[in-house]
Amino acid sequence: MSDVRHQLKPEELVVLNMDPIFSSALICRYKDHMGNDDDIIEAMLVSTKDQETEEDPEKFEKSRKPRLNFMAEHRHGSPFEQAAIKFYVKAPIMVFREWHRHRIGFSYNEASARYKVMPPEFYIPGPDRPIVQVGKHSKAEWVPGTPEQHERQWNRKVQAYSLAWEMYVEGILDGEAKETARCVLPVGLYSDMIVTLNPRSCMAFLSLRQYQPDAMFVSRPQWEINQCANQMEETFKRLFPLTHEVYVANGRVAP
Amino acid sequence: MSDVRHQLKPEELVVLNMDPIFSSALICRYKDHMGNDDDIIEAMLVSTKDQETEEDPEKFEKSRKPRLNFMAEHRHGSPFEQAAIKFYVKAPIMVFREWHRHRIGFSYNEASARYKVMPPEFYIPGPDRPIVQVGKHSKAEWVPGTPEQHERQWNRKVQAYSLAWEMYVEGILDGEAKETARCVLPVGLYSDMIVTLNPRSCMAFLSLRQYQPDAMFVSRPQWEINQCANQMEETFKRLFPLTHEVYVANGRVAP
Amino acid sequence: MSDVRHQLKPEELVVLNMDPIFSSALICRYKDHMGNDDDIIEAMLVSTKDQETEEDPEKFEKSRKPRLNFMAEHRHGSPFEQAAIKFYVKAPIMVFREWHRHRIGFSYNEASARYKVMPPEFYIPGPDRPIVQVGKHSKAEWVPGTPEQHERQWNRKVQAYSLAWEMYVEGILDGEAKETARCVLPVGLYSDMIVTLNPRSCMAFLSLRQYQPDAMFVSRPQWEINQCANQMEETFKRLFPLTHEVYVANGRVAP
Amino acid sequence: MSDVRHQLKPEELVVLNMDPIFSSALICRYKDHMGNDDDIIEAMLVSTKDQETEEDPEKFEKSRKPRLNFMAEHRHGSPFEQAAIKFYVKAPIMVFREWHRHRIGFSYNEASARYKVMPPEFYIPGPDRPIVQVGKHSKAEWVPGTPEQHERQWNRKVQAYSLAWEMYVEGILDGEAKETARCVLPVGLYSDMIVTLNPRSCMAFLSLRQYQPDAMFVSRPQWEINQCANQMEETFKRLFPLTHEVYVANGRVAP
Repeated sequence: MSDVRHQLKPEELVVLNMDPIFSSALICRYKDHMGNDDDIIEAMLVSTKDQETEEDPEKFEKSRKPRLNFMAEHRHGSPFEQAAIKFYVKAPIMVFREWHRHRIGFSYNEASARYKVMPPEFYIPGPDRPIVQVGKHSKAEWVPGTPEQHERQWNRKVQAYSLAWEMYVEGILDGEAKETARCVLPVGLYSDMIVTLNPRSCMAFLSLRQYQPDAMFVSRPQWEINQCANQMEETFKRLFPLTHEVYVANGRVAP
Repeated sequence: MSDVRHQLKPEELVVLNMDPIFSSALICRYKDHMGNDDDIIEAMLVSTKDQETEEDPEKFEKSRKPRLNFMAEHRHGSPFEQAAIKFYVKAPIMVFREWHRHRIGFSYNEASARYKVMPPEFYIPGPDRPIVQVGKHSKAEWVPGTPEQHERQWNRKVQAYSLAWEMYVEGILDGEAKETARCVLPVGLYSDMIVTLNPRSCMAFLSLRQYQPDAMFVSRPQWEINQCANQMEETFKRLFPLTHEVYVANGRVAP
Repeated sequence: MSDVRHQLKPEELVVLNMDPIFSSALICRYKDHMGNDDDIIEAMLVSTKDQETEEDPEKFEKSRKPRLNFMAEHRHGSPFEQAAIKFYVKAPIMVFREWHRHRIGFSYNEASARYKVMPPEFYIPGPDRPIVQVGKHSKAEWVPGTPEQHERQWNRKVQAYSLAWEMYVEGILDGEAKETARCVLPVGLYSDMIVTLNPRSCMAFLSLRQYQPDAMFVSRPQWEINQCANQMEETFKRLFPLTHEVYVANGRVAP
Repeated sequence: MSDVRHQLKPEELVVLNMDPIFSSALICRYKDHMGNDDDIIEAMLVSTKDQETEEDPEKFEKSRKPRLNFMAEHRHGSPFEQAAIKFYVKAPIMVFREWHRHRIGFSYNEASARYKVMPPEFYIPGPDRPIVQVGKHSKAEWVPGTPEQHERQWNRKVQAYSLAWEMYVEGILDGEAKETARCVLPVGLYSDMIVTLNPRSCMAFLSLRQYQPDAMFVSRPQWEINQCANQMEETFKRLFPLTHEVYVANGRVAP
């Protein structure tokens, strides 16, 4: 098998020599954006107002929240599309599987295990992640689990991940294509991606991927994607504070 | 009918007293954007490159165009979605009718004739607009038309527009709802809108809404939307010069 | 201008010789469909059930409504996309303008005034259409209007429509391209289209285009598109009776 | 750990007691459809033809292929959306990961490892699958590999899959939630889904997910999704033979 090594790129050999890393980190990090609350209001005003006439600034100032609230309340969604937010996300494949079901108002570019040797970073639920499910799925709750249960789950994952990595590396060094060697890689493997969305698709995501007991439609997403959604919400709130406020005030229903 | 006037807003009365304006203007004006050529490359690199490793700046510089070209040539479209451009558009309703058939990667907010009294601005093809069609539609060409033909078409439109406006104003002053009074308004009436799109949907639009004899798939759009597309292309080219270059070099096929 | 006539197709000459027709008809007619309530349930069961195991038919029968209701209540929308309905629609352009703003889960093919000479059929609100608006738009109500108001609006539209048609015909016979001659045609002109949608996008449409005082989010659509939506709902109810039932029971919120 | 068993459903216990199954099968099976070639033509004719006039049947018959060809050649895509095809797909997770990147004109419902205990069926490339990659990815070719390489890759996957399954079962029996126990499951695990698409999105899929050396834009998809695409093409060709024919004749470019 020694002849394969020289066909690989230096950085690929580096990755293949790495020891597995186990982590509980989940990242949804701001990268870039276009627009703010006022741009959403401006887009709405195109429907009702002559574009040439300037509005009285004081009157405009007072009208900002009521106007955004009117749109949220009456589900006038399109003005909330007239802005953009871009994120860098790092999370296990199982999270990306859920995420990519959001099709509209979402653009994705993700690491490809066909094109690159994936580095051995694996997700393991940390001690703050409740790992025991109580009740049927439609009304499930998750409870912490004992420290012993946490330790056992950690060990199980380390064991399975380590062998998967070993078999993956052996495959590559045996001359197998990256795209079939990857079969053994677990859905707990980390991947990363760049996502561009808009405030409307952002709210649609949050409404389904956050557990908010006070929401009009309560969702029970998986804990891991909920953590990502929480970070997304922080950015959303910082960039579009009034839009976020009316979203929450209207029961977290995406307009 | 005098009692209706006091129910109208002052600015509505102003509009109702206006004389019709006839114009040949078509506007697609830059408002805002997010991202540049390098952001598109960066999105692509997520697939193939470890995100933590810095690339050699000189090597990166040289690789920019080949990388964008590779994506355009092989129709890797998604990285071209990781940016945004926003326009203000002013054009007759018939142009908006064609434009709104673009559904994916397009967000719209348009003047609403249900919510506001539309101002009397009407489109009439100008002397530079070829108004005579030669040949069947699938292989149509448009030729200038004689000065007399141009004069006659101008007169016809002024006549029809003027009566439409008169009937519209009478309707409003007769207490009729804006939303039914508008029935008589022609598709040559100006409307305006805000549009957000991304470089990928921009190229899809340009590939269908510009007549480019050297394109791989030659399209024969209506002259009016073609003028808007030309303005859009200027902005696109200014903001994403390399992306525009590889788009043109690859036969103006949207990736 | 006599030389132009022989360049036109016989059927175009027929249309150009027609007298304007004025009508209040609005049509959304069933054409075709795929699937039923059980196909939606089957799509949902892929998530939770082994596909090889047959379910007890009696148990399945009882579970149908609760399962659909669960999806509607918890906004599990995707199974409602696993079917299709196709309609033929005939309505004035102003209705199509609103309709085409529905971008997702909607496919359209519409009459083209670039390709064909449009026949002179024009919409005029009938006596059952309330034409007087009371109150500001966000809380507007529409009241019938007096018989005199109705008569006056009918006359205004006949007058404007007739001249528009005259100018359009003159334009064509003057050798003007159909695509610019059409500028004078009003948004009250009838057009027709074929629309394919799915139960999910159907419910999204109905939730915005029907006035239902008992809905969780009350919408105030224009009367004309509401009539089309009512016809669409009849078909939807006939083809997917249980889905329709849970949609209504859950406040007419599109899942 | 014995107390957990009685909390599980009988069918879940059955699955947990199963031995892993290793397979090379890839399935994309027809389930249902709406429409045919003539419905696509009919949708196109709405643009150009009076809907009330019957066309001469003989003339229509002759015009079918040229009309479809005209649309394919000039990229008039929307009529190809006026039909639907539904498939049942069974393939490893890594194939679904690629598939779900197709967002427009695709509806999905997939098995959920949050809701059900996944059965232990794992994909292993069979002897007909070339597993050795030659050349850089953008111009990669795949060659068979020696029988010894095939045997070694089979063994590696059996080893990794078996331990992953063991750790998954242990997790469930240790009281761990299905949604975290699944972290160890590999992307080679089989999943299944129901997919609804239309002829246009079907062609977009085929153009990217089949390797066709004679295509205008040659794509190099992963072998496994290519197998699924081949089965999809068979169904597409059977249901829409003329559409398929013009798609191929026009260089397999999705209109």
